[in-house]
Amino acid sequence: MPPQLPGGARMAIRILITGGTFDKEYDELAGSLFFKDTHIHEMLRLGRCRLEVAVRTVMMVDSLEMTEADRATILANCRQAPEDRIVITHGTDTMADTARALVAAAIGKTIVLTGAMIPYAFGSSDGLFNLGSALSFAQVLPAGVYVAMNGRCFAGDRVRKNRDSGVFEEG
Amino acid sequence: MPPQLPGGARMAIRILITGGTFDKEYDELAGSLFFKDTHIHEMLRLGRCRLEVAVRTVMMVDSLEMTEADRATILANCRQAPEDRIVITHGTDTMADTARALVAAAIGKTIVLTGAMIPYAFGSSDGLFNLGSALSFAQVLPAGVYVAMNGRCFAGDRVRKNRDSGVFEEG
Amino acid sequence: MPPQLPGGARMAIRILITGGTFDKEYDELAGSLFFKDTHIHEMLRLGRCRLEVAVRTVMMVDSLEMTEADRATILANCRQAPEDRIVITHGTDTMADTARALVAAAIGKTIVLTGAMIPYAFGSSDGLFNLGSALSFAQVLPAGVYVAMNGRCFAGDRVRKNRDSGVFEEG
Amino acid sequence: MPPQLPGGARMAIRILITGGTFDKEYDELAGSLFFKDTHIHEMLRLGRCRLEVAVRTVMMVDSLEMTEADRATILANCRQAPEDRIVITHGTDTMADTARALVAAAIGKTIVLTGAMIPYAFGSSDGLFNLGSALSFAQVLPAGVYVAMNGRCFAGDRVRKNRDSGVFEEG
Repeated sequence: MPPQLPGGARMAIRILITGGTFDKEYDELAGSLFFKDTHIHEMLRLGRCRLEVAVRTVMMVDSLEMTEADRATILANCRQAPEDRIVITHGTDTMADTARALVAAAIGKTIVLTGAMIPYAFGSSDGLFNLGSALSFAQVLPAGVYVAMNGRCFAGDRVRKNRDSGVFEEG
Repeated sequence: MPPQLPGGARMAIRILITGGTFDKEYDELAGSLFFKDTHIHEMLRLGRCRLEVAVRTVMMVDSLEMTEADRATILANCRQAPEDRIVITHGTDTMADTARALVAAAIGKTIVLTGAMIPYAFGSSDGLFNLGSALSFAQVLPAGVYVAMNGRCFAGDRVRKNRDSGVFEEG
Repeated sequence: MPPQLPGGARMAIRILITGGTFDKEYDELAGSLFFKDTHIHEMLRLGRCRLEVAVRTVMMVDSLEMTEADRATILANCRQAPEDRIVITHGTDTMADTARALVAAAIGKTIVLTGAMIPYAFGSSDGLFNLGSALSFAQVLPAGVYVAMNGRCFAGDRVRKNRDSGVFEEG
Repeated sequence: MPPQLPGGARMAIRILITGGTFDKEYDELAGSLFFKDTHIHEMLRLGRCRLEVAVRTVMMVDSLEMTEADRATILANCRQAPEDRIVITHGTDTMADTARALVAAAIGKTIVLTGAMIPYAFGSSDGLFNLGSALSFAQVLPAGVYVAMNGRCFAGDRVRKNRDSGVFEEG
């Protein structure tokens, strides 16, 4: 299948929010990090994004605490979405695990997982860069599961996070 | 040609800097906007980008002041670059004109133009989002000239900036 | 008169907005700087300011374009304000001129002028620092006219902006 | 003693760094907050501060973990400083405790404690506002111990942090 050139007929993209560093905020009374609402709408606005997107917050969890039941929920949301192209925001620590679970399910859609090393709310986040990247890969790649991090795109079953460097690599 | 899956062999990308809002700074003595150096290196660092990129500042101009000679210089840089995949940062006002000039030259490389509506230095820029987007499209699209703005990707000879809304659209 | 210790009975402070770099914004369609609304309310919120303040936008002008009639308007606002302590946000280029005009009027209130070298909207402004400074000087200094810039406080009739360095100094 | 008008002879200010939210950073590998170096130099630069300041990092601790020995160290640093005017950056949770300890020591200098509810590194900090405020109070108030938070200035032995609102108040 040749890559569909975006910009012809607009294609709709589903964005599933699952939490992760992407959406962490600073609780100034407790002095700790927590989840409130997703920043995705503000980020799409800042990016002047004009894609047709449908956002759904599936959960708001630290990916180290994500269970198999959570992954089943994410998979169900991918299946049920009317869109064939899906971006999932996800904590980086177990992003590769969720990608593998989605690969195994083989649902025949283009699914791109992405996340951030720095919370968007902290002003110097890689999240805006990664979001632009993930939405772009999602528009042109054929059905499959991918991880978009560090400007690169990895096959969902051949990627891992290097815990020493914080960088994603094949493996 | 099927889309090459990035993340296998790393591909090198040439980034050509031409100026535009992307790189404008605030001159606090004169109270006006001006060009100094490109912010691309800082942006790639913030985005934790690990692509193999080669950056070259070709010019630093407001795109309203870009001449045909300037466009010839950009084209020459595209031709001479050893890389087959090129991202060009460019002012938005005449981005579509430069894209058309590159389409006409038909040099057989994947060229993606992008820019920003807000200077990166102003903290709330769409530039980081667009840069992530352009670098991603550049990795997977076949040879051709494209404009990556607003999260979308347009064919280089069928795009224009809507001056009332500031949004890119087909045309 | 010993300095009144703030924190006892709360004192009210009048904030007069006159424009200047402090409140400039970036017009992304025109690519130029312009005035819209003051950012003072957002700045006071960010600073978690709990002073009793009354904000009034007197004008929104570049201080290089400020006329004698404008200065008369500022003076009238200082006189008419029920508060004895006043902070004025002002463009830096003619801040010293307005300060001298207020000194000459000798209205017996504590008036502190301040401004910014970088627009607040650009994210890296000195405006938040200067605002904290001006509000503090305004609480403890005796009646008189002052300029609060660069962390320092100058007598209103012995201050000038060094146009080469952008720094305020005695003179 | 009448308030000395700053801007005449420049007075030197000692800044003592003790840690607190002010200087917390985000560890992107661990996903948690930690201390590295103080941001005070960058903040003074952003604020275009031209005061003569001497900065000394005394400790880098969360104020909830500050011991009596730590407070003795802070007091010793206040005594030994050649300057008569001192600003101390401090975590907000026990700032009032340290202020009381300094009041009890009665060393005859002007000491202003300040801090932040949001880490400076998070981009939307109250720290820059508070720093401008503390440096200004330190220049004009007579000898004594003060807390500068929320734009206000409190006597060091009559202040507390309201843990529900995060706001400082008399008490």
